[in-house]
Amino acid sequence: MKKVAVILAGSGVFDGSEINEAVLSLLHIAKNDASYQCFAPDITQHHTLNHITGEEMPETRNVLVESARIARGDIKALKELDVQQFDALIVPGGFGAAKNLCDFAINGTNATINTEVLEAGKAFAKAKKPAGYMCIAPALIPFIYEGASLTIGTDEDTANALTSLGAKHVNCAVDDIVIDQPNKLVTTPAYMLAQSLVEADAGIAKLVRCVLSLD
Amino acid sequence: MKKVAVILAGSGVFDGSEINEAVLSLLHIAKNDASYQCFAPDITQHHTLNHITGEEMPETRNVLVESARIARGDIKALKELDVQQFDALIVPGGFGAAKNLCDFAINGTNATINTEVLEAGKAFAKAKKPAGYMCIAPALIPFIYEGASLTIGTDEDTANALTSLGAKHVNCAVDDIVIDQPNKLVTTPAYMLAQSLVEADAGIAKLVRCVLSLD
Repeated sequence: MKKVAVILAGSGVFDGSEINEAVLSLLHIAKNDASYQCFAPDITQHHTLNHITGEEMPETRNVLVESARIARGDIKALKELDVQQFDALIVPGGFGAAKNLCDFAINGTNATINTEVLEAGKAFAKAKKPAGYMCIAPALIPFIYEGASLTIGTDEDTANALTSLGAKHVNCAVDDIVIDQPNKLVTTPAYMLAQSLVEADAGIAKLVRCVLSLD
Repeated sequence: MKKVAVILAGSGVFDGSEINEAVLSLLHIAKNDASYQCFAPDITQHHTLNHITGEEMPETRNVLVESARIARGDIKALKELDVQQFDALIVPGGFGAAKNLCDFAINGTNATINTEVLEAGKAFAKAKKPAGYMCIAPALIPFIYEGASLTIGTDEDTANALTSLGAKHVNCAVDDIVIDQPNKLVTTPAYMLAQSLVEADAGIAKLVRCVLSLD
């Protein structure tokens, strides 16, 4: 049975991991007879947003503690991730991927990446183990892989920013994936384009199947 | 296209709605070509738990605001729920259903139910519109329906408590449902029994299909 490491970034689309994408990732891993272990960095969230109003709340939340809500408590600190124990990596999207795992949502082409996320991503890349990034999480890829092909859907500004950072952007439909075969890297737009759960589900199902089939 | 009202109870299995159950409910509603609108009571959570340690956190969170994380912000206050606008009701589980929507998790057979939840539930019952409750959410049913048949899986103590409150408990496998035909009421154990997302998914898929087929 293949084991997949899943890196979460909080819990909630606007300041953490997109919850639907995270759950659908776990669902499809399980449906493909693989197992998963969730991880998240033990750091303070960039901020906490009221998901109804979009306004910042005067609260300090921790990425690992909030991510645990999605994982039903079964989660480990990212620094404990040992690539040798896993066959593949999957990173769901949501603004948390671009606010907590890196700061692309705030600093664009001047973004930096969390060092634990960088180490984990590079460890999978170096070990030639497949990885899947969805939604805005491909913003992490230019820090991890050199000149990788990826998609964040069709948004021109975001695509241009990732191109500036060294990636090759490929436009992609919501229910499809982009495969960078040499890097064993798979990306899908998910909620960068999805208008419904069914649309997000189609691309995520395809991404998970592909990641688990790349050996 | 049928419209389903979904009542959430926060975001996270131990103090809110079980996130997997909530997302799978929405997914299967959408997969069955129906639409949904999420609702939650605009009240303070019973408490906030660290989902890694299980310990209470010194924070006050709001059920509606936290539920909005699951609904990507598209949620309404429960008091706005107009039964005439919907064809069916679905209530996912998680401890929030038994701590925030009612207090069964704290007071057992002496439990009381939130008045807005009671009104909403009774409105669907009175209108003879189908409803589905999963996991521990069937603890709400004795307050809403008289002598209804339901399941919370196979836990004897919980089943006995619900029987004391006037329900008829039926043991049920994780991938199955219990149908109370006269009340158009469907229940499934979900994470009261599920050992995996795939197991929870099977019962929830069946519940949603059944709720949407009861006319």
